[in-house]
Amino acid sequence: MKTSLDCIPCLARHALSAARMATDDEQVHERVLREAIGALSQIDMAASPPVMAQQIHRLVRQVMGVDDPYQSVKQRFTQLALELSGPLRERIAASDDPLGTALRIALAGNAIDFGVYADVSEADLQRTLDRALKVPLEAEIATFRQALLGVSDVLFLADNTGEIVFDRLLIEQLPCPQVTVAVRGAPVINDATREDAETAGLTDRYEVIDNGSDGPGTILTDCSAAFVRRFEQASLIIAKGQGNYETLSDVAGNIVFLFMAKCTVITSRLGCPIDTFQVHWTGQGSREEGA
Amino acid sequence: MKTSLDCIPCLARHALSAARMATDDEQVHERVLREAIGALSQIDMAASPPVMAQQIHRLVRQVMGVDDPYQSVKQRFTQLALELSGPLRERIAASDDPLGTALRIALAGNAIDFGVYADVSEADLQRTLDRALKVPLEAEIATFRQALLGVSDVLFLADNTGEIVFDRLLIEQLPCPQVTVAVRGAPVINDATREDAETAGLTDRYEVIDNGSDGPGTILTDCSAAFVRRFEQASLIIAKGQGNYETLSDVAGNIVFLFMAKCTVITSRLGCPIDTFQVHWTGQGSREEGA
Repeated sequence: MKTSLDCIPCLARHALSAARMATDDEQVHERVLREAIGALSQIDMAASPPVMAQQIHRLVRQVMGVDDPYQSVKQRFTQLALELSGPLRERIAASDDPLGTALRIALAGNAIDFGVYADVSEADLQRTLDRALKVPLEAEIATFRQALLGVSDVLFLADNTGEIVFDRLLIEQLPCPQVTVAVRGAPVINDATREDAETAGLTDRYEVIDNGSDGPGTILTDCSAAFVRRFEQASLIIAKGQGNYETLSDVAGNIVFLFMAKCTVITSRLGCPIDTFQVHWTGQGSREEGA
Repeated sequence: MKTSLDCIPCLARHALSAARMATDDEQVHERVLREAIGALSQIDMAASPPVMAQQIHRLVRQVMGVDDPYQSVKQRFTQLALELSGPLRERIAASDDPLGTALRIALAGNAIDFGVYADVSEADLQRTLDRALKVPLEAEIATFRQALLGVSDVLFLADNTGEIVFDRLLIEQLPCPQVTVAVRGAPVINDATREDAETAGLTDRYEVIDNGSDGPGTILTDCSAAFVRRFEQASLIIAKGQGNYETLSDVAGNIVFLFMAKCTVITSRLGCPIDTFQVHWTGQGSREEGA
């Protein structure tokens, strides 16, 4: 998916936001912002938004000399998600449709996205959870269920820290014998890495691989050969989050995208209202034709 | 008022928005955006937001070879405001407090601000008008009334095109024998110039002067000597809009600022909620002490 010009000011805003996460020093904020917009004035606008974000966030980390400006916010949301996950798991178990309820919760988890929002509060997350558990999503749940039919092994492309705790609740409900969870190869924004998957308790139960890339999406040309092999071999890929959609929506494969449409660039493309929960399955057309 | 770093991405967004107002050519949009963010990466961040906006909008006009990218949107809002002004004038006349009602309407008119918003719709304006006519503003109206006490001549610093039609309704209610209306010296964003004041019918009844500057505020060091003299001689200055507040809030003088607080940079400074109607009078402290 090509970057919109609207992404450029947004990326500048996020460079500033990343700097503020890591330090209170306003001189550093200014230096990071100046460097980021200088780079943005020269950037290749044919790239996808996550490719551009990868470059800008590399620059931010380099200018600041900080490996992970989002470390504390990531810890905060892992902690919060772990606190919420007990009651949410009970709610799923007590539900008439555990898979559907778990899907709603995983979709809501995609609100924990510091790559779109400058800030996310605990209250924002709770409001999104409440909304995801209420709004009509029957068609989306049916699409997801159809995508899973007869699938033996799933590659689950995780998105953000904290969100992956909610993803685990969904993974627990998948009727597939084998699920592998893939995380980013290195810190970028608040995207989940192996370390975050460990803190969230995912590595205890699932095979967790990393994609070898520090892009906030799945930029296959930037991923490790080992990851790409797993990507190509999976019967079904569940791709979580807007960044994975932006990088994989034009890629061949049996992929079901689960995300919340959080900015006007994506809502214009999809023709959907802002902050709606999206389930898009690349296999839908062919299977429907075959049905 | 010093620029916040948050203004920088916002100014980039507005350069893009200005380009889109003037042409559908996406290559031009990209060129304007690249040039604007290149300039922003070097800009003096000690300046006020309108000083920076002045530089960026000059650049936008120069890159596009267009004198006034906002011309059509300005015409649209002048037309709309003129259509609304008849019924609003009747509403003011029928009101228990004509001055207070006119002030509410003038404050709502400040929503027509393409220097803060990327877009403003007719529905947005109507919603703001409805809100301004309902919310409690008794303290603000009292402050404004107090500022006018015993004032013989007023210099009214107008802000935006369309908005000045609503300002006229307020000016008609001022209990001051002499009112001069000042507009910008040249087009910038959707700020009102002499031509816009003429289209709005203001020049028929009031002396209209221009400030000699293409800044979206009142940058005294950039204004004509003739304007500065009038500024210094006025018994009371009524300064409309956020841009005038941002450029004059630290300037000595008997000034009453009327605006809607439309972005987080200004709401953080004032400690007020977003989109609230503001009346700030520099003379308030001294007069209250003397009362």
